[in-house]
Amino acid sequence: MAFETSLSVRFGDEDHAGIVYYPRFLDFFHRAFEDFFNEQGYPYRFVLDEDRTGWPAVNVQVDFHSPLRFGDLFEIGVQVARLGTKSATFLYRGRVADRAVATGRITVACVDMQTFEPKPIPPHYRLLFERHLQLEAPEGAPPERPRRVAR
Amino acid sequence: MAFETSLSVRFGDEDHAGIVYYPRFLDFFHRAFEDFFNEQGYPYRFVLDEDRTGWPAVNVQVDFHSPLRFGDLFEIGVQVARLGTKSATFLYRGRVADRAVATGRITVACVDMQTFEPKPIPPHYRLLFERHLQLEAPEGAPPERPRRVAR
Amino acid sequence: MAFETSLSVRFGDEDHAGIVYYPRFLDFFHRAFEDFFNEQGYPYRFVLDEDRTGWPAVNVQVDFHSPLRFGDLFEIGVQVARLGTKSATFLYRGRVADRAVATGRITVACVDMQTFEPKPIPPHYRLLFERHLQLEAPEGAPPERPRRVAR
Amino acid sequence: MAFETSLSVRFGDEDHAGIVYYPRFLDFFHRAFEDFFNEQGYPYRFVLDEDRTGWPAVNVQVDFHSPLRFGDLFEIGVQVARLGTKSATFLYRGRVADRAVATGRITVACVDMQTFEPKPIPPHYRLLFERHLQLEAPEGAPPERPRRVAR
Repeated sequence: MAFETSLSVRFGDEDHAGIVYYPRFLDFFHRAFEDFFNEQGYPYRFVLDEDRTGWPAVNVQVDFHSPLRFGDLFEIGVQVARLGTKSATFLYRGRVADRAVATGRITVACVDMQTFEPKPIPPHYRLLFERHLQLEAPEGAPPERPRRVAR
Repeated sequence: MAFETSLSVRFGDEDHAGIVYYPRFLDFFHRAFEDFFNEQGYPYRFVLDEDRTGWPAVNVQVDFHSPLRFGDLFEIGVQVARLGTKSATFLYRGRVADRAVATGRITVACVDMQTFEPKPIPPHYRLLFERHLQLEAPEGAPPERPRRVAR
Repeated sequence: MAFETSLSVRFGDEDHAGIVYYPRFLDFFHRAFEDFFNEQGYPYRFVLDEDRTGWPAVNVQVDFHSPLRFGDLFEIGVQVARLGTKSATFLYRGRVADRAVATGRITVACVDMQTFEPKPIPPHYRLLFERHLQLEAPEGAPPERPRRVAR
Repeated sequence: MAFETSLSVRFGDEDHAGIVYYPRFLDFFHRAFEDFFNEQGYPYRFVLDEDRTGWPAVNVQVDFHSPLRFGDLFEIGVQVARLGTKSATFLYRGRVADRAVATGRITVACVDMQTFEPKPIPPHYRLLFERHLQLEAPEGAPPERPRRVAR
């Protein structure tokens, strides 16, 4: 089940071409990542400073489907697409109403905030992530379809 | 041959974890993209407003190798990794001295700035891109090696 | 009567010194300015693009009282401190709970968005501004206090 | 004598109105402040982290004279307009060629970076600031003119 959040696109978010400056999408996805923690019992500042657990990005992939503009309400569904021992991949589906705008896949490592060394994802975050886990088919896998049984 | 540019990491570029806020890397890569045009005869504002040729990102991939910090000189090598008819993929290798920091692959479409419709890359930009073209082996391809002729 | 809005301070809003990078306060005040219109019947994009009425800043003054940090809820009261024919001065009182954080005074001109020429503030915006008008005592005026009648 | 620096206005610096988003001017002035130290023998990171001397803004004033746009070379002259014991006021004159764009007056406190308590400006910074000191006449003062000696 996706965690849902949203934000208003602002006057200053556009660039010279009159659409949202695309580096800003990563900022928007990061805000959604913060909300994911904030609104499910783990204020993100607490996670970092008290729980000493950080989540630096190690890989980012974004597909842009259609433009985002000042005045739009940008809605973001957050899921966990892969849950490893010391890292996880978050999937962000960004849209305006029913229109797909951008899809992000961001892999974060779990690190100790004092040493910045990777560490296993603590159990309470693992539980949180599992609630939103929806595995993606590996690349190269056949498209999903109802399986027919041969007779 | 890579086009080379650089920028200074600033006081305001870091985040609460004391390293560069990772969405900012896309801004840094975009500045390198602008420099690529600016410093090779095509001021980027001219490209967009006079030549009516825009380059919206359709796909972004970034690998983060090591942290970037306030005070660092961030050097970026820009190459063209794929040159299609109406799109191209730029490769950004970001480093601090000899340390690899982040590698970006950003695919841009070529569009008419009045209609935002895709159009073929104009010949003068194609020539510019070819000067920096270094094809990447497709994923899954065997590593390059001298081909032996069967006898 | 002040218009009230608020925003969450984010992970990426801090700088190398571990407090909010002060240029960001103007961005926060601008968001409050947008909310002022958005939430009182005039979506700010409509104001600019349909009503062709723009509000460029001509003067900005900010006093910083205490630091703002990631995780804080930044509450902003918006008033109109001066209402001229073709310009107005907005007063922003930013605080975290009862702690004063920053006070901004931003004077905006009213311009025609097609020509960028100053124009008189249209009556519907004048009415809106008057609802939040609270004149400040001119500088050098004695502090307010109950007046005692001499006998 | 003013310290001079400059920066290129980028594609992403504009807002929906097609001019530089005005909060960004404070970021530009801060970069000039960093350059002021960086290029005169005190790398700004060293100032903060090794010399433990910080310069939080306590008051900001900006006058906007004319628009700044993507593609412009923004030149900034930096002077010291007031030099106190524990604070100083920097004057930033921003222009494009001969056109005045924005003038900033930013008062910074001198603080100990470990305690964030105000401290006297250390002598080496005081010397640096004095090299660029040009006192402004207090507001309301008569314009400067040669003083005549009474006979």
